[in-house]
Amino acid sequence: MNDISNLLAAARGDVPSDVLITGGRVINVFSGEIESVDIAISGGRIAGLGPGYQAKERIDAEGAFIAPGFIDAHVHIESSLCTPAQFAVAVVPRGVTTVVTDPHEIANVAGAEGVRFMAANAKGLPLNLIIMAPSCVPATDMASGGGVIAVDDLMKLREQGIAHGLAEVMNYPAVSGGDAAMLAKIATMSGRPVDGHCPSVTGKSLNAYVAAGVGSDHESTTVQEAKEKLSRGLYVLVREATNARNFSTMLPMINSANSRRICFCTDDRTSCDLLETGSIDYMLRSAIAAGIDPIDAIRMATLNPAEWFGLSDNGAIGPGRWADLVMFDDLNQPRARMVFSRGVLAGRDGAMVKTAVTRPATAGANSLGKCDVAWDRVRLELPAKSDRIRVIGSHPDQLTTENRVLRAKITGGRAVSDIGGDVLKMAVIERHRRSGNMGVGFIQGFGLKRGAMAGTVAHDHHNLVAIGCDDDSMLAAAHAAAKDGGGLAVAVGENIVARLPLPIGGLMSDAPIEKVSAGYRRLVDAARELGSPLNDPFMAMSFMALEVIPSLKLTDHGLIDVEKFQVVDLFV
Amino acid sequence: MNDISNLLAAARGDVPSDVLITGGRVINVFSGEIESVDIAISGGRIAGLGPGYQAKERIDAEGAFIAPGFIDAHVHIESSLCTPAQFAVAVVPRGVTTVVTDPHEIANVAGAEGVRFMAANAKGLPLNLIIMAPSCVPATDMASGGGVIAVDDLMKLREQGIAHGLAEVMNYPAVSGGDAAMLAKIATMSGRPVDGHCPSVTGKSLNAYVAAGVGSDHESTTVQEAKEKLSRGLYVLVREATNARNFSTMLPMINSANSRRICFCTDDRTSCDLLETGSIDYMLRSAIAAGIDPIDAIRMATLNPAEWFGLSDNGAIGPGRWADLVMFDDLNQPRARMVFSRGVLAGRDGAMVKTAVTRPATAGANSLGKCDVAWDRVRLELPAKSDRIRVIGSHPDQLTTENRVLRAKITGGRAVSDIGGDVLKMAVIERHRRSGNMGVGFIQGFGLKRGAMAGTVAHDHHNLVAIGCDDDSMLAAAHAAAKDGGGLAVAVGENIVARLPLPIGGLMSDAPIEKVSAGYRRLVDAARELGSPLNDPFMAMSFMALEVIPSLKLTDHGLIDVEKFQVVDLFV
Repeated sequence: MNDISNLLAAARGDVPSDVLITGGRVINVFSGEIESVDIAISGGRIAGLGPGYQAKERIDAEGAFIAPGFIDAHVHIESSLCTPAQFAVAVVPRGVTTVVTDPHEIANVAGAEGVRFMAANAKGLPLNLIIMAPSCVPATDMASGGGVIAVDDLMKLREQGIAHGLAEVMNYPAVSGGDAAMLAKIATMSGRPVDGHCPSVTGKSLNAYVAAGVGSDHESTTVQEAKEKLSRGLYVLVREATNARNFSTMLPMINSANSRRICFCTDDRTSCDLLETGSIDYMLRSAIAAGIDPIDAIRMATLNPAEWFGLSDNGAIGPGRWADLVMFDDLNQPRARMVFSRGVLAGRDGAMVKTAVTRPATAGANSLGKCDVAWDRVRLELPAKSDRIRVIGSHPDQLTTENRVLRAKITGGRAVSDIGGDVLKMAVIERHRRSGNMGVGFIQGFGLKRGAMAGTVAHDHHNLVAIGCDDDSMLAAAHAAAKDGGGLAVAVGENIVARLPLPIGGLMSDAPIEKVSAGYRRLVDAARELGSPLNDPFMAMSFMALEVIPSLKLTDHGLIDVEKFQVVDLFV
Repeated sequence: MNDISNLLAAARGDVPSDVLITGGRVINVFSGEIESVDIAISGGRIAGLGPGYQAKERIDAEGAFIAPGFIDAHVHIESSLCTPAQFAVAVVPRGVTTVVTDPHEIANVAGAEGVRFMAANAKGLPLNLIIMAPSCVPATDMASGGGVIAVDDLMKLREQGIAHGLAEVMNYPAVSGGDAAMLAKIATMSGRPVDGHCPSVTGKSLNAYVAAGVGSDHESTTVQEAKEKLSRGLYVLVREATNARNFSTMLPMINSANSRRICFCTDDRTSCDLLETGSIDYMLRSAIAAGIDPIDAIRMATLNPAEWFGLSDNGAIGPGRWADLVMFDDLNQPRARMVFSRGVLAGRDGAMVKTAVTRPATAGANSLGKCDVAWDRVRLELPAKSDRIRVIGSHPDQLTTENRVLRAKITGGRAVSDIGGDVLKMAVIERHRRSGNMGVGFIQGFGLKRGAMAGTVAHDHHNLVAIGCDDDSMLAAAHAAAKDGGGLAVAVGENIVARLPLPIGGLMSDAPIEKVSAGYRRLVDAARELGSPLNDPFMAMSFMALEVIPSLKLTDHGLIDVEKFQVVDLFV
């Protein structure tokens, strides 16, 4: 008897189901009602709801509420610095059983191979990974990335059943402007969901962006912006990321008339945040605490994203769907007591059930991309051509920077870090193909008093980035970061103070997420001990090389004036 | 500049749009709000909403409400006895711009060719036809139909872009029972919508039916039935057909928490009903009159079916979607003043705008199926084998019949119609392949006092059916009905009292729908003048040969005991 025959036989009650969950109060996201009804599970799917079912195993829910497994509508797993398998350890016990993910970071390092790795790594997990194919790799040609996702790659990823749709189309000027290459990428996912990314885009530009076939956005930062996007047909994915907390701002836009077009997403969250605060479960509790009807809130975390992404196997407790279930006791404060993934108990009381974790082998993981620096060509010295320099002016917790012109500190004919003025040297060193490309400049706002920090996480091209008080510390930190495939490091002189290896593409570790989180915490603490006032200097550094966010950034091509979209000289 | 480039240029306001509709109150089905906003249209699609657009033509809505074009979520166009082109004349001026249709009847006559004809006939119409591939052709092997839709046909219809999904899967015992052939048909439309048809199916059978992959149902006749179906994940398509008026019964099940999963459909409506009462527009007015919020009601006629069927080009007024629009003055009683289909004015004040009608050629239409009776083998005489006969006991306005055993009227050794007892002779004569197959029996409830009626519309196999008081009248009516490809007729003796030609498959006419409606009215009047008390004797007759609805029916194989699912003898 094949799977479907067996499922139908169980549904009819002709054969016993595998599991019967009794005594629960089932959140019916279709009807908006709460049903006291048994759930029969067979082959990982819901066979039926109702009385009279027999099963090999009975589980008494003891009056708990049972909701469909939560769906994160948009997340970059790489931002946790963990593999999908380890990311799952943090989110599954919290009730998140499906994530729609954009493997944009690993794609920038390893192209389509990186995307395939994420899919392979997720196999057998109690977490359902819906992969959206990255749409903007590389972001520009003003940095040297490690991977390219071309139209052919997108077609292949779709044909191979890996790509479910197209991930956030960030190049919104190209979309609205009708750029043929961009539209060709959208066309590869015809009939599939195409996610958007259009911060502050309104009016006619927004009309054009939507008309091009984009169906969602998660970048709204005001109620007005989000309401306009929803009114034009975009699903609004309300975001609560580590570095972009929009949720409380967005709350007033949600009402019972429009909530069917609203979903929850986390976008980028660190492992620390995931382990300590949570994921979609945290957003759900926040929404209910803010007065949103619990069932409407649960729909935003389940049925709504299932509808937007066409996930007919997820997002509801109905016959034929995967038995992804979250059990909790307080409807006003859902905290998962038990979590089932495809009918198997995967989480209990906030922890992963060990037998449910099939930790997949990460064969080939360490050959994803390269961390191969032409060290013999690395020169951090900056012979002074003048005494006035362009300096990246960074602000705490912001991705945008100022383009400042300051007087340089010159020692021995060379421009050097001015620790008193918090003008630190910054370097971005190409690491994907040993080209020897590098950019060196200065940045204000990181506040180190001594030593240096470095890492191979640098959006989007993920070259080797370092910021420091002196060249020796920077080189030491850079060497430590780049070792064995990549990672993050803090150094003082030749002394490595802290280091987190990220051997998978220089972006991810397959060590237990608790270890990654602790290691990351040590790095942040080390940087703060060296004087940085930033909450998360590493997260901040990783965006200082991103040449699509204004105003001044540094890539391996040099200083980028983002408004002019060109390389500019350090010395004015 | 290609279509999409041009659309985006218009959306940006870089080039003028074709049409700008100003001064309207736009029903925003996404947000649930009413917006006073201009609508710019380019290349038949909505380019943008908002101020500042220029266009070649401006239309002042003068404060009218503007809703998305209405969607009929399930309709058999053949039941109007008209082609799609003529059906459109009735529904488009009422605001129905999209119909999801199941060409089940023409498929039973002409197989996949019949389905292709419907698609071809709809080309260029101001009515968007979404074709669901018939799933149960033939219904059984206890009648001789003209066409078969096998798994291969379904695959081909999908590949050719003709089939959008699978039409109502009527053989619900086969679905729930896990019949491999039935599941194979469902599998052909993997990832596509699969419509259901499961009258009175509840509990475990319903669970199995839903688990098999069916996503909707339009057969509920009680609130309890509909609520259970919705709760298990089926979209509930509330129906108001000519012969199945469920709408007022269903009203109490609709609330703001579940209405997103509810749509409107007409299933089967005669041309008279469409012209006089209306289509989805009528249901919309009824819903609002019954107290349903107008915007919720409009969503049931627009966004909800668009979501269920994945019609991202329809169902809302948003950039990139087809500019299918309905303009009306009273939100509490929407009556279309102007109707736009793909940006072109198609209906005004209840009538089709002639320039909008591209009446497609119906080349090849008359070769669809056959009406080819082996007249030399037609024998209506019934030599009496006994004096007790099985009689089909029909009830007014019901498809189900009783299996009665009565004393036969015998004249000259033959069983004949007993006019006093309203036991009339009925014949079903195979007409698709001149096989000479025929069944002859008796039926009670049609009430003719003289003459006979006949037709080539006889669900689902659509053989030639006749009911009458004497053999001469029956033969004359049958001959008249079968002439030139098929039709309906009433005869008294050799005199043809009324006749409606249906040359397309014996099911449809391509004459103007007003003419078809008038002709049909004459037929019904003629049958009633001959004594029938039924509201619509022809609609009634067309279901008396349907061997899947209990209890006793007649096909060309003979009398069918539906409960026993076998042919039984006329004489007991």
